[in-house]
Amino acid sequence: MGGDSAPKMVVEGIAFALTRYKNIHFILYGDEVQLEHHIAESGLKNAPISIVHAPEVITNDMKPSAALRNAKSSSMRRAIEAVKEGKADAVVSAGNTGAYMALSKILLGTLKGIARPAIATHMPTLSGYSVMLDLGANIECSEEHLVQFALMGEMFARDVLNIANPSVALLNIGAEALKGHSEVKAAHQILANSNMLSNFKGFVEGDDIMTGAVDVIVTDGFTGNVALKTIEGTVRFFKQMLEKTFKSSWRSKLGYLFVHRDFSRFRDKIDHRRHNGAPFLGVNGVAVKSHGGTDALGYSYAIGVAADMVERKLNEHISQELNKWYASNNIELPLKVIHGDG
Amino acid sequence: MGGDSAPKMVVEGIAFALTRYKNIHFILYGDEVQLEHHIAESGLKNAPISIVHAPEVITNDMKPSAALRNAKSSSMRRAIEAVKEGKADAVVSAGNTGAYMALSKILLGTLKGIARPAIATHMPTLSGYSVMLDLGANIECSEEHLVQFALMGEMFARDVLNIANPSVALLNIGAEALKGHSEVKAAHQILANSNMLSNFKGFVEGDDIMTGAVDVIVTDGFTGNVALKTIEGTVRFFKQMLEKTFKSSWRSKLGYLFVHRDFSRFRDKIDHRRHNGAPFLGVNGVAVKSHGGTDALGYSYAIGVAADMVERKLNEHISQELNKWYASNNIELPLKVIHGDG
Repeated sequence: MGGDSAPKMVVEGIAFALTRYKNIHFILYGDEVQLEHHIAESGLKNAPISIVHAPEVITNDMKPSAALRNAKSSSMRRAIEAVKEGKADAVVSAGNTGAYMALSKILLGTLKGIARPAIATHMPTLSGYSVMLDLGANIECSEEHLVQFALMGEMFARDVLNIANPSVALLNIGAEALKGHSEVKAAHQILANSNMLSNFKGFVEGDDIMTGAVDVIVTDGFTGNVALKTIEGTVRFFKQMLEKTFKSSWRSKLGYLFVHRDFSRFRDKIDHRRHNGAPFLGVNGVAVKSHGGTDALGYSYAIGVAADMVERKLNEHISQELNKWYASNNIELPLKVIHGDG
Repeated sequence: MGGDSAPKMVVEGIAFALTRYKNIHFILYGDEVQLEHHIAESGLKNAPISIVHAPEVITNDMKPSAALRNAKSSSMRRAIEAVKEGKADAVVSAGNTGAYMALSKILLGTLKGIARPAIATHMPTLSGYSVMLDLGANIECSEEHLVQFALMGEMFARDVLNIANPSVALLNIGAEALKGHSEVKAAHQILANSNMLSNFKGFVEGDDIMTGAVDVIVTDGFTGNVALKTIEGTVRFFKQMLEKTFKSSWRSKLGYLFVHRDFSRFRDKIDHRRHNGAPFLGVNGVAVKSHGGTDALGYSYAIGVAADMVERKLNEHISQELNKWYASNNIELPLKVIHGDG
């Protein structure tokens, strides 16, 4: 029920997803009447979809703490519980991010060895695609958190983006080891002096994100959120300036007729719907956040991220790598391991 | 002597600047032979330029601490000393940023009431121009620092960018007061509950920077540096993608012939040379940093920022406003005031 155009967009997103993923069975938590209506309208009567009536909605303005205390039978909570109870392999929601992360953390717990889950995204760059995390789940991050994010990002890039031997770097304000705050410097030291990552590249700066200098960019949730939204704002700036430029004279209007075919390919590359689906990495279960303002096509990509995470067994791989590393690690600073359901 | 193409670019930048600013007298600190050669080559023999032979250079890889201890007769240090001694009204350098800021702070001190200087920039947005600070002088900032940055940014926007009643906001990861780290929330509280700024807009997010939601964006030096460089990287991404798109078929190549005139106007708008010149706000004197990789045109804009700051008496206005506010402030949290030469 979460998202600007839900639940219509969710049901139509399933229609898109079913063209690419044949083996998914969908359980929809939400208002039964609305869901059945949209299923019929989308021609999905015979599709592998079950409905669980859960009309209570966690609104976007609800604080995570309130969502935890109340909203016990909300569609979001019940969908996450389905993963906890093994009824579903993954949950996808376009609802309230803070509540979704808080509920996922509490209900599913974290993977063994992971202290804090992180929100990740993938995006187009000059050289392909990059992963960035954390995007806002953790305002302040210790070096242990950053190190764990680095491993999770590496595994996501490998398993879901199919990047062999992904390069990983910490986001900082200079390439030299002496710059930055203490946590990022300490994380650098751990990663540089251990064999956790096979392709650790040290530090990158903000201008390396979109140029694709590395495959995985690791940062705290405050910086990551600002960086991601700054990219979004700059993309919007360019889109509007381009539109204005193409309309600014009869010459440019004419020119647009010649270039529009190639420009639509470019537009596809930066179409945020095609990179929709932010996984909550480190949660003991697969939970993917769809952008609230996306449409059916965008939602289908979030479903795809969840499906790929399940099929490629991302969480198993993260646990395996982490435990292998803990067992064999020869670093001085021991990582604090908080495991449990909160 | 600082910058990739110095001192040639500096001298040629003066030639550009002299076409717009008739009343500047330039004192060049650097290698006399080189400077005289470039002055002759640029046809500036009769221009208002004096030379002080100071061939020692602070290199880009020199740590600020080393630049402070050694390099006593470097061109950068001597140029800053000229401001301290009243021989010059402003200093402009394209050299080592860390050393330049450290030397400026030590030699010139800070304005009364300002604890820490900040590096600011101005950049094009959808709705005009915005100021952002700090860009890296202060990795971690207290609420007092952020509040002082806010006032300095407001005054810069008013005096130098000619924006009447500039709107000011704190960069955060959500528009709600409950989000963000403690310093940004505390700064918000101070600014929202005082009359320091006449047009305080609360929080903005990363995507508000380039869309021009406010005139002044205030943040800590880590976040500001990442945000600015992220914009630079995204601009580079777009430039390269556009170039590739216009060359991707004969159709687009043909179309480019029609649109190139309007696109060159767009290119001018985002030409970083035209926004070159990052002032060290809060320093007791005018010090402006030019991008190290800029050319003569870019350098002339940095000179322009310095000239405007002097002419509009920016530092006087900052001091006046700050003292007025201290005198009349009715806020609970008193601002810590560190004044002096370090």
